This record gives sequence, C-alpha cells and structure tokens, in this order.
Amino acid sequence: MSSNLRINTKRLISRIEKLGKIGSIDGGGVCRLALSDEDRKGRDLVIKWMKQLGLKVTIDKIGNVIALREGNENWNPVMTGSHIDTVATGGIYDGNLGVLAGLEVIETLNDADIVTRKPVGVGFFTNEEGSRFAPDMMGSGVNQGSLDLKSMLDVKDADGKRVGDELEKIGYAGNTQTNIFRADCFIELHIEQGPILDLENFEIGAVEGVQGISWNEYKIIGTSNHAGTTPMRLRNDAGYVASVISVEVRKLANKMGGNQIGTVGVTKLNPGLVNVIAKEALITIDLRNTDEEKLKQAELDIASIIEKTCIAEGVSFESRLLARFEPVSFDKSMVKMVSNTASKLGYKVKALASGAGHDAQMFAPNCPTAMIFVPSQNGISHNVKEFTEKKHIQAGANVLLQMMLQKSE
Amino acid sequence: MSSNLRINTKRLISRIEKLGKIGSIDGGGVCRLALSDEDRKGRDLVIKWMKQLGLKVTIDKIGNVIALREGNENWNPVMTGSHIDTVATGGIYDGNLGVLAGLEVIETLNDADIVTRKPVGVGFFTNEEGSRFAPDMMGSGVNQGSLDLKSMLDVKDADGKRVGDELEKIGYAGNTQTNIFRADCFIELHIEQGPILDLENFEIGAVEGVQGISWNEYKIIGTSNHAGTTPMRLRNDAGYVASVISVEVRKLANKMGGNQIGTVGVTKLNPGLVNVIAKEALITIDLRNTDEEKLKQAELDIASIIEKTCIAEGVSFESRLLARFEPVSFDKSMVKMVSNTASKLGYKVKALASGAGHDAQMFAPNCPTAMIFVPSQNGISHNVKEFTEKKHIQAGANVLLQMMLQKSE
Repeated sequence: MSSNLRINTKRLISRIEKLGKIGSIDGGGVCRLALSDEDRKGRDLVIKWMKQLGLKVTIDKIGNVIALREGNENWNPVMTGSHIDTVATGGIYDGNLGVLAGLEVIETLNDADIVTRKPVGVGFFTNEEGSRFAPDMMGSGVNQGSLDLKSMLDVKDADGKRVGDELEKIGYAGNTQTNIFRADCFIELHIEQGPILDLENFEIGAVEGVQGISWNEYKIIGTSNHAGTTPMRLRNDAGYVASVISVEVRKLANKMGGNQIGTVGVTKLNPGLVNVIAKEALITIDLRNTDEEKLKQAELDIASIIEKTCIAEGVSFESRLLARFEPVSFDKSMVKMVSNTASKLGYKVKALASGAGHDAQMFAPNCPTAMIFVPSQNGISHNVKEFTEKKHIQAGANVLLQMMLQKSE
Repeated sequence: MSSNLRINTKRLISRIEKLGKIGSIDGGGVCRLALSDEDRKGRDLVIKWMKQLGLKVTIDKIGNVIALREGNENWNPVMTGSHIDTVATGGIYDGNLGVLAGLEVIETLNDADIVTRKPVGVGFFTNEEGSRFAPDMMGSGVNQGSLDLKSMLDVKDADGKRVGDELEKIGYAGNTQTNIFRADCFIELHIEQGPILDLENFEIGAVEGVQGISWNEYKIIGTSNHAGTTPMRLRNDAGYVASVISVEVRKLANKMGGNQIGTVGVTKLNPGLVNVIAKEALITIDLRNTDEEKLKQAELDIASIIEKTCIAEGVSFESRLLARFEPVSFDKSMVKMVSNTASKLGYKVKALASGAGHDAQMFAPNCPTAMIFVPSQNGISHNVKEFTEKKHIQAGANVLLQMMLQKSE
C-alpha cells in the first residue's frame, strides 16, 4: 500500500547538510547568492543527484532546472520544487528543503519500484530570494509567464552585473523555452520562516495563500555640507529624510495592524562620513499584506509621507519599483488536501498565510497549487541560526510524498 | 611702509588651483583623504613650493610639515597654517587656502626684501578632517600636546589601516619630536564653511572661538530575520533603531536651539538587503555647541534616548567615542587685532564663532591664537561646489599678511 510509504529522513537530512556546506559561513549558515560561483556549485551538486536518480534534467533560458520522472501515461507532471539560492546570511533549510525533499520523494518511489500514472518532477528556480537581483521569484515567474524573459535577463545587481551575463558565466543559460512548461499541479514544501507554527506548537502548516509584496527603492537627493557649520534650519539632509521615512514605515505598519508589515532593510548614505551632511540616501521599502486593497493603501500612504518629508527638508527624490506581486490564494481543494493528508499522518496542522513570497505562487495561475509549511525554530530565517527540527522535516516530507502519490496515481 | 604691502592674489589663486588638481573629482572638487596617495602628491607639491621660497622644512613624527623663515632675532616663530587633507567630496579652498595664503605672505615678504624681527612660519597638519581617521585635528593636536602620539599612530581607518603604517607608506613619518614646537602666536586663515558671512554680506570674520565637538559611533545589535514573515511585534530591527536615533538627534538640536547642532552622517545596515531585517546598524553622531555644559547635556540626552530605544526594540548596543573637544575661546587681543586690521584695510568684519574644528584650536592653549574667516558662497563646504570669491581670498590673505607683519616686527 503506497499510503504506508515513508521517506528516509536520514538520507534527506544528509543531502540538506551536504548542500549546506557549499557557500557555508560562520555560525552554521550559508551564502549562495543567485548566479554566484557558490550557486553554480550548489546547482552542479543537485543536478548530479537528479541524474543519479534517473531523472531527465532540462535547463531553461533563465536557468531554472526541472527534473522529471516518467509515468505510465502522458500527463503534465505532478511537480514539486523550490530554490537553492540564499540571502547573504541565510540558513541551510530555506528553499533547499523543498528541492531536496522532492528528490527524497523520488528516491522513495524508486526504492519501492512504484510507477505512477502521471509523471512526477522536481525543479529549482533561479533567484527566488531577490537578494542579488530584483525582483524575487524571478526564475519561476519567467518559467510560468508572469515575468518577461528579456527584461529579467537585463536586470543588474548592485555592481552592475547582468542576469544574462551571470547565467552564461556560471554555465546555466539553458536552451529550454520559458512559459511553455505546465504542471498538472504544484506542491511546495518550505520552512515557515515565521514564528507561528513554532509558537503555537503545530507540526504542519497548510498554506492558504501568499501575502502581496511591494518593493520600492527611493533615492533621496539633498545637499552635502559641513556638519559643524550648517545651522539646522539651513540643512537639506538626505540622511535625515531617510531616517524619517524608516520610522514612518514602522508607524504605518503598527497603525494598520492586521498582517500589514513594513521593513526598511537598505539604508545607504553618501558620502557617509561623520562630519558631512549626506547628499544622497538610498533606502528600500518592503511592504506586504494579504489584502491587495490594504497593500495599495499602504503604498499610497508611504508615498505621500515621503513626498511631504522631502518638501519639508528641501530635498528631492527618485523612486524605482523593484518588485510588485499581488496577494495569491492557493487552490482550495489542494489546501484542504494538505490538511487532510497531514491529519491522516497524525500531525497537528494549522491553516495560515505565507508572509514570504514563494515559487509556488508563480505556478498558482496555471495549475492547482499548494504549499506545506514546517516550523522554523523561534521563527528565525534569513539568518545563520535558521533551524528546523528533524521530526518536522520528516513530517513535511511525508506529507509531500503522500500528496504527490495521490495526485499522480 | 610695510602697512602698504599687499599679497599677489593671482599668484595665490594659481597655487590654490594647482593644488586643487591633485585628487580632483567631477564638479570641481577634490578628494585628498589623509595619508592617501593624493595626500602624498599634495604634500610633495607644497613642500616643493616651500623650498623654492627658501624656507627650512621639518616633518614631525605624525607627519606635520612646518616651514620657517628666519628673523633677525631668536624668538618663537609667528605662525600661520592649516591643512591640505580633504573630505571624500571636498572643495579646493577648505584648509588649502590657509596653507597657501601663508606661502603667499612669505613670498610677499621675500619680494619686498623684508626681514622680520621674529621668525615667521607656515605649517600644514596631518588629518585635520578626520574623514579617514578619527579624531580630526589629529596632527595639530599631537604637535601641540593635547593628543598622544602613540595612540594616534595606532588609529585605524575603516579598512583597518593604521595611521603609523600609512605615514610610512607615503614617506611622511618624520623625525621631529612632537609637543616641543611652540609658536609666538598662531593665526589661521580659513573659509567660514558656513553661511553667515555670505548671507549677511561681511568680508571678514573675526573668529572668537570654536564650538565644542563630540563624535560618537554606535553599533546597534539586533536580530536578522525575514522581512516578510516576522510580525512587527516580534522584531529586533537594528535598522529601525538607527533611524529612530537619527530622527531624535534632529529633534534634540531643534529643541535645544541656540548653536546646538547634531548630525548623523554615517548609517550602515548589515546585511543591508531589501527583504532582511537588519541585524546590525552602525551610526555616528556629531554634536557641537559653543557651551560645554550644553554640549554635555546634549550628549547625556542622546545617550538616554539610545538606551530607551534599544530596550524598547529588544536590541543591544556598543558605543565608541571617536572625538571630543571642549569649546575653545581664542585670545581676546588677537581677535581684536583681526577686527582692527580688517577695518583698517576697509573690510566689513563680523565677530563670530566657528562651527567647525580647526588646527588653530590646538595651538590656543600654548600661544595667543586667532582665526580669520572669509565667506563661503551659500555656506557650502565639504562639497565640490565649495567656492570663495577672488576678492574675499584677497581680503583674507591681506589681513593675514598685515597681522603677521605686526606680530613679527
């Protein structure tokens, strides 16, 4: 009975730890920024494993890697997958768990000599994090047609390096066309990256949808001047304006409440010297909400505050949209299947929204899609201290296995 | 009659422009950070000129250059001087005017075959700006004994490079002992770097004293986390705390009024990514006041705000004192001599305090000291747009000439 089939937790964790050694940094974390040399080494290793499992591997023009296992009939494949790029100070679970659990599901099927009716597959998608290149979820977005291939190849990082050139450089500018691949359904296993499951003692999260994401970059242009001789009333201090905006982002999120969040993760002053009033400040604003109307309101409110603050200080600004994704609702029957499968396996399951963007949301417009969350200890992620317990990894991967079996049988 | 003697403005401006070409940057400015290769080239040029004028040049252990012209009698020299290091995006007048006007005074004496009773001299002092190494006024402070030579040689820049090593590297680790040179008096000509003289249409400023300066660096230590999944109430956002402090510095300066000023010129977030809550923030706080008690109060108020803000956000902090100078009052008879000399020459003169620190304040405890200010157009300084009109350069250099003549006769 395939409903009794279980994954091999030790084997899965061993792969997570092996991949985590590539780009490893102090404190147990990992730095594998998209399209870096470390990313290339990580990709090479995962593809080696895919081939060892007998999968057919294709690489598309934005560097996404999709590996398929044949079924008895000619259907679109039942897909899982995630990403293996990380933030600069990331953990070893974010993204990697979903990809390697997919491999583990396939190895479990191989070991049990199960031939599914529909093909099954696992993919990993380029630049999900968006830490080096904006927007995030770039690969899955292009693969599923919601982002434009040509524009994305032209995106540059902070050093002016182009996605297209960096793909060529690491040898992952593939030949497969984008926006043609369609899955029968898509199920992504991921760590929660937030504190809810851990705090409330759940083992599995059935993800109902993903918050909408709005990323904007603001460049404030003031006047550089001597910090000791310029009276307060005569200043056009770009750094001061940046700090006011950053405080206002927090105020707005607190005022709106609910699941509105706001973060200023980048603040750079130019020239950035102790005794010089900053002539330029660069900041990013990350706003998220599950409700598109509220997210729009937050964007408008912040834009209005920025304009007023700049006028009051006598500085100007330029803005640039880095990323904008509307909130996504996953397929209700798929979400229910996550809950039911987890319950049958004896796990405590909670339905919740994802605060982070995920590759799954790019598949959602084209096929029934769902996500399985497992707890992040203390809610910590994008941090070397990111950790998910062995028992939760086992639970999540078994829910994934059982769902893929049900969907492909 | 030496009271009819005047400097050669064209020659002085030609030297300012020649020196301004070393390390020149777009927009007419200059980048000659202390002990950089550009600083070395600037030093080499000024010393070449000093030697052409027949001066005896010495270099002390912190790299200060002092050039003397003999007098008829064996007195301490009547000194002028300033600095030739600049901030990263500086103008060509700041510091350089004072040094090159000193050379111009000496060339004028040479041309007129005047032999003064007391020796006269001109110096330039290492790392006055403090942009690369803190504290500022490092060279004059060590030369006059208010800063310790050994500690200053061990100061490191942001890249970990030591003052002592960088002095060796550019060939300016001299042999002359510090804290032995004493001037008969010290008169420094400098651009105002503030807007007062220009706004109020004065030609000369008689500087009564220098504001006290307090520079502190704060490192805020929070928790790096995912910007999309961490509820607002669970954040320990070092970047947010930095922005609150920056806003509070402005509020405090506005509340205190008078000549209290406050600037946050450095804000650096780590890791500094759009979707990661900052785990660390580094900021600097520059506070200045002419009143030592008020400056102390400002320091205490800001320290208290930082502590409260850090506790409220659940972050910790470390602080480091970068520089601390008490307010300085210049010698009253010397200040009066600036006013009288300027008036006699037909210039409109205003007594005012200096907002910036200057090398002169390091001489003030050891000899009668004064400063002559000339207007900065629109008060702009530490900026490539820094500009002082030819007629004001002429006025300032002639006041300097006449004062040095009076003091050395």
